[in-house]
This record gives sequence, structure tokens and C-alpha cells, in this order.
Amino acid sequence: MGKVLTQDAQRFMVDCLKAVGAGKKPALQQAELLIEADKMGHHSHGMNRLELYVNDIKTGKCQPNNECKILKESEATAWVDACNVLGATSSHFCMDLAIKKAGKAGVGWVSSKGGNHNGIMGFWARKAAKEGMIGMAFTNTSPLCPPTRGKQPVLGTNPLSVVAPGAQDELFYLDMATTAVAFGKIEIQRRKGKPLHPGWAQGTDGKITVDPEEASKARILLPLGGGEMTSGYKGFGLAAVVELFCGVLAGSKYGHHVRTWSLAEGGEPANLGQCFVAVNTSCFAPGFQDRVAAIMQHWRSIEPTEPCLRVKCPGDRERRNKEEAESKGTVTYLDSQIKSSAALAKKLNVTPMQVTAE
Amino acid sequence: MGKVLTQDAQRFMVDCLKAVGAGKKPALQQAELLIEADKMGHHSHGMNRLELYVNDIKTGKCQPNNECKILKESEATAWVDACNVLGATSSHFCMDLAIKKAGKAGVGWVSSKGGNHNGIMGFWARKAAKEGMIGMAFTNTSPLCPPTRGKQPVLGTNPLSVVAPGAQDELFYLDMATTAVAFGKIEIQRRKGKPLHPGWAQGTDGKITVDPEEASKARILLPLGGGEMTSGYKGFGLAAVVELFCGVLAGSKYGHHVRTWSLAEGGEPANLGQCFVAVNTSCFAPGFQDRVAAIMQHWRSIEPTEPCLRVKCPGDRERRNKEEAESKGTVTYLDSQIKSSAALAKKLNVTPMQVTAE
Repeated sequence: MGKVLTQDAQRFMVDCLKAVGAGKKPALQQAELLIEADKMGHHSHGMNRLELYVNDIKTGKCQPNNECKILKESEATAWVDACNVLGATSSHFCMDLAIKKAGKAGVGWVSSKGGNHNGIMGFWARKAAKEGMIGMAFTNTSPLCPPTRGKQPVLGTNPLSVVAPGAQDELFYLDMATTAVAFGKIEIQRRKGKPLHPGWAQGTDGKITVDPEEASKARILLPLGGGEMTSGYKGFGLAAVVELFCGVLAGSKYGHHVRTWSLAEGGEPANLGQCFVAVNTSCFAPGFQDRVAAIMQHWRSIEPTEPCLRVKCPGDRERRNKEEAESKGTVTYLDSQIKSSAALAKKLNVTPMQVTAE
Repeated sequence: MGKVLTQDAQRFMVDCLKAVGAGKKPALQQAELLIEADKMGHHSHGMNRLELYVNDIKTGKCQPNNECKILKESEATAWVDACNVLGATSSHFCMDLAIKKAGKAGVGWVSSKGGNHNGIMGFWARKAAKEGMIGMAFTNTSPLCPPTRGKQPVLGTNPLSVVAPGAQDELFYLDMATTAVAFGKIEIQRRKGKPLHPGWAQGTDGKITVDPEEASKARILLPLGGGEMTSGYKGFGLAAVVELFCGVLAGSKYGHHVRTWSLAEGGEPANLGQCFVAVNTSCFAPGFQDRVAAIMQHWRSIEPTEPCLRVKCPGDRERRNKEEAESKGTVTYLDSQIKSSAALAKKLNVTPMQVTAE
């Protein structure tokens, strides 16, 4: 493990993105998104993805200095063309628009096509929560999840986030893939040589597997709920709803048409579909934030099954990680990440990060 | 099993509701909602609930002839007081309003307080789909589901529905509890003397149980995803989102404050929170319905794991059941349902249903 000053990690990401042609603002916005994931402990969506973004710019699939366009709008909606900009650029554009519309009409619903990978959904949903609204964000992703009873993946991990502000500094923060787990958890078990939990992954024969080697090869994730007997079709249904709001509504790539993201040369722009919603809570019953705080505090007061494991609310873990990272002013990375970042620095002729041993 | 002409079953339900004082329109609307659930094979939400509604009216907790009130509205939103009317009455009111607002502003989002049990959520979401829109419906329910790591239930089965129209007569129809299963599935296993699937229910000790007797006594359902290792906290998070949209936004009873529904005398009105959303798909990319049809047909084309079990789309099962019931013109009930309906007819001095043996 290696420790890096948060500022230096962010500087490094900005420099890399600028080195391949991104302007200062899009580079900074993308770096802020990635560093936030790292601070929250969601390293899979942090610096870990930097090289993929860099590569998408280098190969022309991503056009970081384009401007997003509103293609159609009404009081409460907008259909946006992200024009292949970086995920952070278009997501700021869309969520700002949703918040503005919600401020006037009560709801803002923006679906965009032509998008690139836009990091943790919670980052976008939380933007609305900072304005006192309920925020929601959705994106489609590359196929990994089959329909219940089916062998081939047809939908992605299709994450969704719902964030709502509470009184007394509470924040309801749900940010989840609609698959049971993300692929990273399978990798961890594989490295440990330990079996998977039934309900995580499926083999190429279409049967649930607990063998991490088989699951790593097959790359087929079960939806939230797992197999049919434990209602996996509900998790699949939710992944499908995310796709309805994103690719199907926005007319981007959708479902099995979404490309696999890799460092390969060539290929078409990702053309992802994304969706951003803001709901103005002041249009409903007074006291919303008090009730959010009360219900979250009630959950935490519930007697735990294991005395040593307290009940947590959605977002408690992310918040603790973030607060810890901010109090230290550093982020921590795996050695493999440190190594690949150093190689990237060299390749792009960018000042590498200053790393101290953890 | 007993077979009843659909028209006669509906007539019987209308008569029972009128016998305790409901006007003709609210009685008919409630009966249409219940018969639809029976036709779709969701008998738990059909005639099975009739006596509870009748009792709520008799005891004054439900006021079927009140009128719903809009308490606050904006271009895209409304906050409604259902004023304790039957669930069907307020849900028609709210969804009609959401559709109207979506027609003009692009989105209609209506959250209501003062509601009663409003049957299958899909009935309400589908109303918007019939107008070419994406429809969504949510309701809070009595506590049955604990937070992950916790012992006591704090949220209900909190169902959600998302329905979207497709070309070629396709209909994406997702209607699901956010718990792994509904309580009825545990009862079925108990009657069969068979163990539960791990991930359905929790004992009073807070541990996952597969013992149907213990689960029946404890009445604690696990969220979609089951225990912590299979990401049950995501299902809990979704149940919480439903509560945010319903009770927390509308200022009704919420979470652990929601009453248990029973035939007991006295008690307060249910004061449930409900939420109805319509999204006008014509505000986004042209061709929405074509893409809905294409993606659903792709899912059905996927090679099945078991050759005899074809892949289904959300809503396919309900649709087949409904078409079958409609072609026969009859609905089928369990003997226990036939018996309790006959007793109810006698008690209310209403003409009983004509039953033929199945």
C-alpha cells in the first residue's frame, strides 16, 4: 500500500488528462470525481479508471473539449447529447440542468446520450441533495448480467443512486449496482482462493457458481437477489429500469449493444445513456429533512444481531471513509495502482505522484 | 378450488363495499383493482383483501366517500391528501394528476398522505403506460423488514412498480416488493412442511432462518438480496427509497410508525404514504417504444439455462395469467377464499358469488 497527498493525487490525474488534450476544467472535474471515489473507499471507480479515460481521449473516442447540447426540453425535462465529453463534464451539465428545472417546476428529469463512463452515481445524486432536493442518477454499463433463466449477459451492473438530505447533518446516500456484487468482489475471492457466495455469479453453463476461477473466466454476474428462488428476477427488473431511464429513453446504445470498456485501440465512442433526476422536496410536506434524520437515527438504534456489528444507514460507510481521508489529507492505494500510475506518468511525461509507504 | 364468473366476482365485491356505505364509483374502482390482481394471479392482493377494506369502512378508519385534496402543486408535482378514501379512489386521483402534469411539463410526480392500501402497484403504473408514458407507483406498508444487521423490522415490503409501453403490443411491467419474497411464500412452505430458501426470512434472534414455523412466528422478511454477504443492504436501501418517496415526502405515517393492518376494531386511519410518477417519453429520443420492444424481444431470445424454462420479461407471467382468465371469463379461488367470501356475504346480507367446482 502507498499513501499519497490527496492534492497530489488529484494534481496527477489532472495532469494526465491534460497531457492527452483535455482542457483544464474538464480535467479538473473528472479528477474531482475520481478522487471522491477514492476517498469514499470505492477505489474501483477512482484512479483505477484513469488510464481508461486517458486512452479514450487518445484514441479519439472521447472528445473532452466538446460542449454538451440540449436536444429537446420541457418545463421538467431535457434530452441531452453529451457529445462524447468526459463523464464528469456531461454529468455536471445534466444534473445542474435537472436541479434548475426542479427549482422551478418541482422535478427535473434529464436523460443523455453520447456519454462516457461517469464514475460513482452518488456523486451526481448528491449534487441535488446539496440543494435540499432528492437527487437520483443512473447509467447503463457494459453487459455482464443475464436475465433470470438465461445464459448470456444482456444488461450491465447498471448502477443507481438516490441521495436525500436530512436535518442534523444526516445524508441518505444509496449508491448501488443492480447486480448482487461488482466484479471486484469476485477478484478478491479469487486472489484469496476462497469460494464465492451463492448468488453472486453464474458460470457459462448458466448455473450459479461458487468457484472464483470459473466466475472470473465467465464474467457473468447475477442480479441483486441472485437466482430465481431468491427473486433475482427483481434485481434484473431493476437493472432493466435503469436501462429504460438511460439508453432506451435517451436513444444511446442500450442493453447488449453497449461496448465493453477496455484499453483496446480503435472502436466507436461509448455512447452511453445516463439519467439525472432532481425532486424539489419543498413541493411536498414541510419537515422532509427532519423525517429523513429521524428515520435514519431510528435504524441506527435497532438492536444488532451481532453486538459488535452496529446497524448502518445507506452512506454511513462512505461517509466515515471520506471523513477519515479528509482528516488525514491523504488517499491510500494498492501497490499495483501505484505502479501503474508511475508507468502512466512516464508514458505521458507527467510528474509522478509522491508516494510514501503506508 | 372454485371457479367464479369474473363479472360475478366483481359484482360481489362492489356489493360488499356498498353494503358498508361506499358509493357506487369508489366501490367499483376498488373492485376493478382487486379483480385485476386475481386475474393476474396475484391473489394475495385480490379478493383476499376485501374483508379488510370492508372492516376499515365499518370501523370508520376508511371514509370511502370523501374527496381527495391537492394541498400544494407546481408544474410537475402535487402533494395530495387522500383523506382516508379507498386506495383505488386516491390512486386514480393521483395518477390521473401525474399523467396530466407529465403531458404538459414532461414529468408528473404526486406524493399523497392519508392513504389506504391500494392493491397492486402495477395497476397504477400501467395507467401511465396506457398513455404512452413511463409509469411508476410506490407505497409504504406495515413494518416487516429489518435493516441489515438489525433484529427488528423498520420498513414494509414497500413495493414499487415501473411500467413502460412497447411497440408490437409489448409491455414492460415490473411490480415487485423490495423484500426478497412476500409473506405468502413462507406460508406456502409452512403448509407444505418444506424449508425456506436462505435469504427469505429472519428469526427473532436476527439470524437467517430456513424453518417455516419459526419464520411464520417471527414475521420478519429479509430485503431483496437476503443477508449482508449477498448485498441485502441494497434491497433495504431500495425499500428505504420507496419510503422516502411515500411517507417521508408526503408527511404521512412512515417506517416503523405504519400500523399493522388487521381486522381489529378501533385504531387510527392507516395514513399511508404513496407516490405516483409519470414520465412523458415524447420529451426524449424518438423511438422509445421500438427500443422497449426490441430489448424485451432480445431477452426472450436468450438461450435458457434449462431448455424447458424459457426466459421471461418482467410482466410476461402476469400477462399470460390475465389473458387466460379473460379468455375463460372466470377467476379461480382457493376453497378457503370461497368459504370466507360466503361468510362475508351472509354477514353483510349480500348475494353470494355463484361458485362452480374447478
